[in-house]
Amino acid sequence: MNLSTIETPCLVLDKPKLEHNIAGFCTRMDREGVALRPHGKTAKSIEIITMCLKGSNRGITVSTLKEAEYFFNNGIKDIVYAVGIAPVKLDHVASLIKRGAEISVILDSVEQANAVKTKAHEHGVCIPALIEIDSDGLRSGVAPQDPLLLQIGRILHTDQGVSLQGVLTHAGASYSSKSREQIRDFARAERDAAVHSAKMLRKNGLPCPVVSIGSTPTATHAADFEGVTEVRAGVFMFHDLVMAGLGVCAIGEIAISVSASVIGHQKQRGQVIIDAGWMALSRDRGTSSQKTDCGYGLVCDIRGNHIPGLVVSSATQEHGVIESRTGMPLDTDQFPPGSFVRVLPNHACATAAMHERYYVTDGSTEVVAQWDRINGW
Amino acid sequence: MNLSTIETPCLVLDKPKLEHNIAGFCTRMDREGVALRPHGKTAKSIEIITMCLKGSNRGITVSTLKEAEYFFNNGIKDIVYAVGIAPVKLDHVASLIKRGAEISVILDSVEQANAVKTKAHEHGVCIPALIEIDSDGLRSGVAPQDPLLLQIGRILHTDQGVSLQGVLTHAGASYSSKSREQIRDFARAERDAAVHSAKMLRKNGLPCPVVSIGSTPTATHAADFEGVTEVRAGVFMFHDLVMAGLGVCAIGEIAISVSASVIGHQKQRGQVIIDAGWMALSRDRGTSSQKTDCGYGLVCDIRGNHIPGLVVSSATQEHGVIESRTGMPLDTDQFPPGSFVRVLPNHACATAAMHERYYVTDGSTEVVAQWDRINGW
Repeated sequence: MNLSTIETPCLVLDKPKLEHNIAGFCTRMDREGVALRPHGKTAKSIEIITMCLKGSNRGITVSTLKEAEYFFNNGIKDIVYAVGIAPVKLDHVASLIKRGAEISVILDSVEQANAVKTKAHEHGVCIPALIEIDSDGLRSGVAPQDPLLLQIGRILHTDQGVSLQGVLTHAGASYSSKSREQIRDFARAERDAAVHSAKMLRKNGLPCPVVSIGSTPTATHAADFEGVTEVRAGVFMFHDLVMAGLGVCAIGEIAISVSASVIGHQKQRGQVIIDAGWMALSRDRGTSSQKTDCGYGLVCDIRGNHIPGLVVSSATQEHGVIESRTGMPLDTDQFPPGSFVRVLPNHACATAAMHERYYVTDGSTEVVAQWDRINGW
Repeated sequence: MNLSTIETPCLVLDKPKLEHNIAGFCTRMDREGVALRPHGKTAKSIEIITMCLKGSNRGITVSTLKEAEYFFNNGIKDIVYAVGIAPVKLDHVASLIKRGAEISVILDSVEQANAVKTKAHEHGVCIPALIEIDSDGLRSGVAPQDPLLLQIGRILHTDQGVSLQGVLTHAGASYSSKSREQIRDFARAERDAAVHSAKMLRKNGLPCPVVSIGSTPTATHAADFEGVTEVRAGVFMFHDLVMAGLGVCAIGEIAISVSASVIGHQKQRGQVIIDAGWMALSRDRGTSSQKTDCGYGLVCDIRGNHIPGLVVSSATQEHGVIESRTGMPLDTDQFPPGSFVRVLPNHACATAAMHERYYVTDGSTEVVAQWDRINGW
């Protein structure tokens, strides 16, 4: 099957680039001597996560219980569900544990710790938990110096329905870094917050086997993983224009793109219209705050070769508008109606989420596989 | 089943509000004496489109061939696929026509008209087509005064494989109106462009039975439908914060929301963290250019009652941050971990697209039905 025969828009995954990205990241983690716990939230695909685990039996990270259930049904047992646990989900967690999943939840409040305890007793299971640490001021987590850390730790350690696994943090704010030096600062803060929290717990007689950190930018540029037991990351598998803007990857390393048909021109306005709008590309405008704003994505030919100077400048539900950003008007005749382009995403997680499956190519336009994604909750 | 037992995030549809919105819009169209061709792109649900058709056998609009196939499989024959046709999709269109669907495509180029002609001959079917007219300079369509209009019209009229159905336009730019008067201006331009194009075709001996216009804002506020044969609209069923900002609806009329659990606090920052991030709310920030920026959505209690002064101020993949926008710090204790909120969407099409189904309530927290959506392509 060739890309030129597949109805557009569709999500294309370049397998050689995927393999290259995974190999590069795994090599770095190996060199740093730190275990990788790949995050399923970007790929949401057992084929891709299996490639990251390299056939080993190590664990993964997930962002939804639907991912947890799907990966568990596909043979992966060791799972960290890395979104603060909501009590309404604990019956589901308990049912997975009863079926044999080694699933850990994360939390940052006494109320959640007590809810976990209560549900564990109700179901007669033990629910392992990690305490979430705030290392960047962006969203959830206990500050490392907050006495709440020990208070939660004691609830988790002294009850048989729960078990204190350790601490976990994510430097999501690193996505908005302006320089490599700033990414290193976020990486240092991320490591320091987790390691300091682990020390606090241990100093007070509480166990902390797991010290879990990670984001693709910080994991790529961190200078020091001392005291860290595992790194979580997901975007590295595909990379995207935000990562390219951060200097974490090159544009040529981005492994996913959206195949689109040219469905019209506005010659006088120098515009080419494609059938990939925000429904296919996502509404993510992550590069809008970077030095180079990539609009709704950069444009490649059907083989995936980047065509410099073009950008998807606007998008409605099922329409994208390609324009030149060089100041030179776009020669619309280069893109006759019915021809194909591929659009590189601002944010891999967001763009991939708009699609149900990957059309996997061998690096050319030949589709060698279709891999399903597990979207939703 | 009660909303308080359903895993979050999930998409809630308030049925009484849905019924109220559909009745209001249909009444207006009836009063104006113009047929409604509801757009399936917002709801993507047979249950909801059937309510809009009020049991009649009239036609609908769709934004994907997957919608077309789904609605056809559910008994609706008369379908306009209102995205400029890509040649790669014509085999699919032809197969639906062979199965009995009365599906029309739209186009705005000689190349597309010729591609339709060729494929129709290849399959031995007749593919009806509408010429897309540009009425707002936003994306696709032929300008009404462009000689291309007649050129395309003649190709479509003089070949037995195609049939010229008429003209179609959409004033999508009306979504960014700053006043009701401006919406009326867009409505006037939308009607004028379609009616003028129809006259041009007829004056030159070409048929133009269909003069199709529509968007929720222009259809709501247009002063004149003279010469128009049908109105297409989709957002009116649900409404959203963009429509409320435009004065097209009241906040209390918005029929969909995302149910979320409180999963933590940042007391010192006055923040409540919920488990609905951009994956559940969408990345759409349509109100950011309006007078009142609603962030990633406004906040209601679990019964759907709007809580004034709160906003989802930021979102990552599975986390939303609720803050006060009154200047008064948010009392986080009002929202204990495990409690529920509902978030009203900026853009109904975008938020609904992140979910596979609706949890339909009777207006309280009682779920009376689950309706599936047909996402993707």
